[in-house]
Amino acid sequence: MLSKGDTSPLQYGATQGYGPFLESLATFLSKQQSYQMQVDPHNLFLTAGASQGLDLACTLFASKGDTIVVEEPTYFVIEQIFREHNLKIAGIPTDSDGMMVSVLAEKLESGFRPKLVYTIPTYQNPTGTSMPPERRKQLVSLATEFDFHILADEVYQLIHFEHIPPPPLISFDHDNRVLSFGSFSKILAPGLRVGWIQASRDVLRRFTDAAVTFSGGGFNHYGAALVKEFIDMGFLDTNVTYLRQVYSKRASVMNEALQANFGNSIEYEIPTGGYYFWLRFIDGRDTEVFLPLAEENGVSYRPGKIFSESGRFNDNLRLTYTLYETDELEKGIARLGTTFRNY
Amino acid sequence: MLSKGDTSPLQYGATQGYGPFLESLATFLSKQQSYQMQVDPHNLFLTAGASQGLDLACTLFASKGDTIVVEEPTYFVIEQIFREHNLKIAGIPTDSDGMMVSVLAEKLESGFRPKLVYTIPTYQNPTGTSMPPERRKQLVSLATEFDFHILADEVYQLIHFEHIPPPPLISFDHDNRVLSFGSFSKILAPGLRVGWIQASRDVLRRFTDAAVTFSGGGFNHYGAALVKEFIDMGFLDTNVTYLRQVYSKRASVMNEALQANFGNSIEYEIPTGGYYFWLRFIDGRDTEVFLPLAEENGVSYRPGKIFSESGRFNDNLRLTYTLYETDELEKGIARLGTTFRNY
Repeated sequence: MLSKGDTSPLQYGATQGYGPFLESLATFLSKQQSYQMQVDPHNLFLTAGASQGLDLACTLFASKGDTIVVEEPTYFVIEQIFREHNLKIAGIPTDSDGMMVSVLAEKLESGFRPKLVYTIPTYQNPTGTSMPPERRKQLVSLATEFDFHILADEVYQLIHFEHIPPPPLISFDHDNRVLSFGSFSKILAPGLRVGWIQASRDVLRRFTDAAVTFSGGGFNHYGAALVKEFIDMGFLDTNVTYLRQVYSKRASVMNEALQANFGNSIEYEIPTGGYYFWLRFIDGRDTEVFLPLAEENGVSYRPGKIFSESGRFNDNLRLTYTLYETDELEKGIARLGTTFRNY
Repeated sequence: MLSKGDTSPLQYGATQGYGPFLESLATFLSKQQSYQMQVDPHNLFLTAGASQGLDLACTLFASKGDTIVVEEPTYFVIEQIFREHNLKIAGIPTDSDGMMVSVLAEKLESGFRPKLVYTIPTYQNPTGTSMPPERRKQLVSLATEFDFHILADEVYQLIHFEHIPPPPLISFDHDNRVLSFGSFSKILAPGLRVGWIQASRDVLRRFTDAAVTFSGGGFNHYGAALVKEFIDMGFLDTNVTYLRQVYSKRASVMNEALQANFGNSIEYEIPTGGYYFWLRFIDGRDTEVFLPLAEENGVSYRPGKIFSESGRFNDNLRLTYTLYETDELEKGIARLGTTFRNY
């Protein structure tokens, strides 16, 4: 990049993000089978990762005392970000189709008035579930009817296996309601801190006009310029295809190991994409109590309880298969199985 | 960096920031004449630039309705960041020694209770003034007495000319009161979005423990790794020395051009570092009215009024000399002079 003699990535960048990066990203997303929509670069905004974007959305779209809806269970770190913004958190239960939008609808009809709804529509963290198109439509239409915005954390959208997931929540939006958060952390390199928000121009204007954006001149100008080169050279396509194959294989190895070690003593759905297995011990054992025993045997996991403020999910746990080689996954599940049988 | 085979800068980083970067930065700062203090890497935290750090400080150290003190005039974009956090802004006047801390002291004694004080102690934006050591001491001791934190924007501290400025505000702090914001935007490359906060470990813990920090794993891991190499190769020393010479020369050329074109019709102090001239028209003419006439003649500036909510500084304007070559500066001031004489 620098050998071309262009030093502009070292200067302050455009508030919306480096233009050529937004164009390359739009082209890349538009080609994705899991997008099923044309993405316009004018609807994209450069972030320094999904978390930074979500944090800024809290600053710009809510204030102290406002209520934000989350799925129950949900990504535990995000809940903490919302709490740092002094937002009230309200959980909505999930089933195997993700957030139970009908429960949210009932609460709304009884006078419940959230300012924001946070959802991970595809390959949810931690449950791995995806919301079917009908629910997506209903959620977006509730946003219009009851005047809230939806923060859709769609960072796993591109990590599908054979089966193509429903298109992003934003493809159902015709009323400036959805902010779709994407990230290169899951498809390229988390250390780069490059992500994006996809939203209507009206919504994006709030981000481009924000003083903190203006003051720094785009949230990761240099990083975006690097990623742009990476996309244009075709490496991102190659990498995402590679990750899908590798993660799909790892998920299937973990599934087989779980079957072999646990049989009918655990319950779960086989992931069709994303990062996670969400297990439940049939005997109801407390996964927080079980954790130190597992760690003594050299394996760890996230206990279910941390993914919710409800105090539920005591008998659940989350496993991640993306970070380890298949032989390590087999070893890890075998250790978990040994701990389980000797408990 | 990457040719060494170390791909760790591509992975999630430590929440406090990439360790080797913090060490190299501490060594670099400790050697600076304008620091006059030993900087410990444990007192440094990686940010994606000073604005990002200030924005996060607002989230973590204040909430809706709290009051933040600013200098009058001050950096206009920062005021807007505070407003986006729903903070109340209270201005304290400045003189040729920066913030009039005695005025703040009087207000505090009358019951005024700010949560935060924002100051640019050295080469203030826009006035170019620096607070003498006595005022720095008094401000820090007020913070202890009246229980507030000080956000010290010290991004110009290293940009001194012959005369060495007082040491950073944080060198006067013995009670976890000061957060010192630094940035590579002014000494290396703004596009990289790398900066730091220097503070006590107790204060930094708030930043390292923040969910948004944890979720992303350090605010600009890859950028920090790049900057670390740059520091270790000795290039940052060379660059800062070079910038001091170039900016000092540019300031002196602008000063001569102002004298030649305006003589006694303007008033200002000659900057001893930093980025800015802060002029006042003796005839009291409104610099906002004058601006479009100047722009017709091909020169622009920031009118004084935008640096304050008080409605004052109508007859002031800010000029930046760092962004242009000396011949361009001479041309610009000549155009401003022509506009002035034909007004």
